[in-house]
Amino acid sequence: MQQNQSNTSILRNLLITICYDGKNYHGWQIQKNARTVQEAFQDALYKVLGGIFDIKGCSRTDTGVHANMYCLSIKTDKKILCKDLIFALNRVLPYDICVKDCKEVPLDFHARYSCKGKEYVYKILNSRIRNPFLHGYALHYWYPLDISKIQKAGEHYIGKHDFTSFCTIDKRENKNIIRDVRKFEIKKENDILEFYIEADGFLYNMVRIMIGTLLKVCQGKIDVTDIPCILEAKNRSQAGPTAPACGLYLNKVFYDI
Amino acid sequence: MQQNQSNTSILRNLLITICYDGKNYHGWQIQKNARTVQEAFQDALYKVLGGIFDIKGCSRTDTGVHANMYCLSIKTDKKILCKDLIFALNRVLPYDICVKDCKEVPLDFHARYSCKGKEYVYKILNSRIRNPFLHGYALHYWYPLDISKIQKAGEHYIGKHDFTSFCTIDKRENKNIIRDVRKFEIKKENDILEFYIEADGFLYNMVRIMIGTLLKVCQGKIDVTDIPCILEAKNRSQAGPTAPACGLYLNKVFYDI
Repeated sequence: MQQNQSNTSILRNLLITICYDGKNYHGWQIQKNARTVQEAFQDALYKVLGGIFDIKGCSRTDTGVHANMYCLSIKTDKKILCKDLIFALNRVLPYDICVKDCKEVPLDFHARYSCKGKEYVYKILNSRIRNPFLHGYALHYWYPLDISKIQKAGEHYIGKHDFTSFCTIDKRENKNIIRDVRKFEIKKENDILEFYIEADGFLYNMVRIMIGTLLKVCQGKIDVTDIPCILEAKNRSQAGPTAPACGLYLNKVFYDI
Repeated sequence: MQQNQSNTSILRNLLITICYDGKNYHGWQIQKNARTVQEAFQDALYKVLGGIFDIKGCSRTDTGVHANMYCLSIKTDKKILCKDLIFALNRVLPYDICVKDCKEVPLDFHARYSCKGKEYVYKILNSRIRNPFLHGYALHYWYPLDISKIQKAGEHYIGKHDFTSFCTIDKRENKNIIRDVRKFEIKKENDILEFYIEADGFLYNMVRIMIGTLLKVCQGKIDVTDIPCILEAKNRSQAGPTAPACGLYLNKVFYDI
C-alpha cells in the first residue's frame, strides 16, 4: 500500500529510443504465434515497471528489418528516473534490443502521430563473394551495380508523389498515399552500398520496392526515365520487386521536440 | 575408372583464403563433440572434390574468434580450376564461412610453416550502452578508455621479446616463446576501438592477454611503465587477464609468395 502511494503520482509520457537487430524477430508489432520486438519490449517493461503498457511505436517494421533508431512512447505514473529506466531495461532486454535514450515528453505526444519524418537505410553487399559478417544484415547482390545510374533513377523519387506503385496494398487501411521524399543519397565503402532515403512518412514496403526497382534499372529492365511514369501509373505491377528485408534499417525518426 | 583417369594427374598444392564468423564454432581445429571451422571446411571439400583432405591451417583459433582472413593449404590431384573451386565451395559452405581466394603454390608450401607473420585486430565497443549488432563481434567495455595511455603501454610490446608472461601455457608443446611484434596501432571510430597487432607469430592467447593487460593499465591497476617488467618477469601471473574471444579477429596472414 505504501509502495503504491510512493510510486503513483502524476502521469508522465516517456519517449524511448531503442535500437534492434531484427534478425530473430517477426517485425515490431505484437502478433500471435511469433516473437516480435514489441513483445520483447513489453516483457522487459513488465519486469522493470510491472503491468502491461500500451506501447505506441513509431511504425511497424517487417520480419527481419533492423532499426538503428526506433522510437516508442509509453505513459506511466511511476517515478523512475529516465537514466535509471534506460539502465534497468537494458539489464533485462535480450542482447539484440537495447535502449539508447529516454526522455519525458508532453502528454499529447504520440510516437507515431507526432512523427515528422523518418530515414531508412538499405544496405547492399555488391560483390561476387559473400561476407559472413553481413549475412542477414545486407542484401548480397552479385552483379555489378552502376551507381551513377541508380543515383539518376533515385532522384526521380524525390518530391511529393502518389506512391501507390511503390506500396504493397494493405486492405486494412485506406490511407493517404502521397508521400514527400526529401532525400535520396548513396554512400559506398569498398563493396558495401548504402541507400539513404528520407520522407515525411513511408507506405507499406515502400523503401523495399524503391530499391527493388532501382536494381531493375541496373539490370536494364527498367529505364532511368521510366521512374516518373511508374509513379504516374499508380499501379504496383509497374514497379520492380520488393527487395529483401535483411538490408533494411530504420535509421532516424524525426520529431519537433 | 575413366573419371579417375581424367581427374588424377599431377599433385597440386592449393592455398585457400577464407573468412569466417567464429560465433558458432569451437575454433578452427577439428575436435571431438564440437563443431569447428576445419570440420565445416572439410565437409565442403568432401562435397566438392570427394575424399578427406589433410588440411593445413595457418593457425588454431579459439572458440568464438573470427577471421577476416584465414589461410589453409591442401594437396590434391584434381584438375579443378581455382576460380571454379572458389565458386563450388561457396555454394556448399555454411553462410558463416566463405572462400575469398584460391591459388596454386609450390608443393613445399605449408599454410602454417611458410607463414611469415600475422595481424590480429581486437575490437572493443567502448560505450555505456551496448550495440545489438556487435554482440559476439566486439568486447563491450563500459568504462572510459584512455587511448593515449593504451598507445604508450602498447608500444612496449613492439620488438623481439620473450612473451611467456603473455601466453597461456600449453603443456603439449615446448615452444620457442620469442616473438617479434612489428606493429601496435589503435583506430577509433565513434565508440568502436580497434587494436591492430602484427607479429612474426603469436603464442596461445597472446593477443587476448596483451589486450587484457592494456585494460588493466586503463583501470590504473598496472602502470604504463610496468609492461617491460611484466615481459621481463616471464610469468603469466604478472600480466592482465585474457580478454574475451569475441573481440578477436585474425586479420591478415603474410607469406613470401
